[in-house]
Amino acid sequence: MQSEPVLHNLMQALRCLPGVGQKSAQRMTLHLLERDRQGAFKLAQSLAEAVDKIGNCKTCQTLSSSEVCGLCSDPQREQQLLCVVETPADVMAIESATSFKGMYFVLNGRLSPLDGLGPAEIGLDQLAERIKQGVIQEIILATNPTIEGEATAHYISEMAKKHNVIATRIAHGVPFGGELEYIDSGTLSHAFNGRSEV
Amino acid sequence: MQSEPVLHNLMQALRCLPGVGQKSAQRMTLHLLERDRQGAFKLAQSLAEAVDKIGNCKTCQTLSSSEVCGLCSDPQREQQLLCVVETPADVMAIESATSFKGMYFVLNGRLSPLDGLGPAEIGLDQLAERIKQGVIQEIILATNPTIEGEATAHYISEMAKKHNVIATRIAHGVPFGGELEYIDSGTLSHAFNGRSEV
Repeated sequence: MQSEPVLHNLMQALRCLPGVGQKSAQRMTLHLLERDRQGAFKLAQSLAEAVDKIGNCKTCQTLSSSEVCGLCSDPQREQQLLCVVETPADVMAIESATSFKGMYFVLNGRLSPLDGLGPAEIGLDQLAERIKQGVIQEIILATNPTIEGEATAHYISEMAKKHNVIATRIAHGVPFGGELEYIDSGTLSHAFNGRSEV
Repeated sequence: MQSEPVLHNLMQALRCLPGVGQKSAQRMTLHLLERDRQGAFKLAQSLAEAVDKIGNCKTCQTLSSSEVCGLCSDPQREQQLLCVVETPADVMAIESATSFKGMYFVLNGRLSPLDGLGPAEIGLDQLAERIKQGVIQEIILATNPTIEGEATAHYISEMAKKHNVIATRIAHGVPFGGELEYIDSGTLSHAFNGRSEV
């Protein structure tokens, strides 16, 4: 059994999935081969197709199977609003949760000099090009509220200022359903500083 | 993004894996495409190869890429000892934990009349054939200690008796490192009934 290279290869290959260790990989392998061969076959095809076809949208850098993604080529969206996020997952989250109808720009992560990620690496040159075109009137900074995310937002806001474009930051504070008692101090002080008149 | 069918298909396909829901599938999809395309490519290949090549060993019914698996065709193993288990995963567990050097027979599950699993469905006909050949002298019953597993073990022990083959059951009791205080009553009473002289 241990000496079955085909099974061994599949178990090893499954470990490239996030959160899958040796035991889960074995369970997945046996489940697929004993009970869901059709699913396994379809998964193999979908993976191969995605690796082959999915690249980055040349306008917003998100994952896309066409040169320009569906959101960027949609004429109904407001071209003057640009939301800057860190990953394609953030685009999905914003699309499903909000009524935002502007455009997106997906950074390739965030500024993190210690990891060798400078402005060029995360695609800020392309963003600068886009701002220069003069269509964008407001940049909504939706990077994560971490130290690197804040630094990235600050850097982009300076860039926007130079080109006379308004830069706004999404609100940070106590989340809906959260209880003050259990909120971390950073968030709570942010919520106080960012208070607005009722 | 939501309208990107290639990504959507991959997310759906990943959900055939046990324990993977919508959120995990999305995380896996983005991780593979943004950070580990080589891993994704290799996974697609391994899956396709496994689905194509892995069948059941015609002697012991375990998963195997050859007609007879490595364990069954190994001349070094003791042909007169046969260990009966419920799944290929049990074979892996026994191989890695014990020094057992006999043969295996993998049932296709366990007797469970309510789910339509009778003796023929779980491969007991093939097991009877194998016992009739006269090589096996002892059958080690290593089905799980559940109601169905016990019933299956009992059924096979009756089969063995008919052909004058010894049937033994692996020991059940307090697990190593377990504390009596926290052991369930069924296991504890089993451990008392199965006590042996020191």
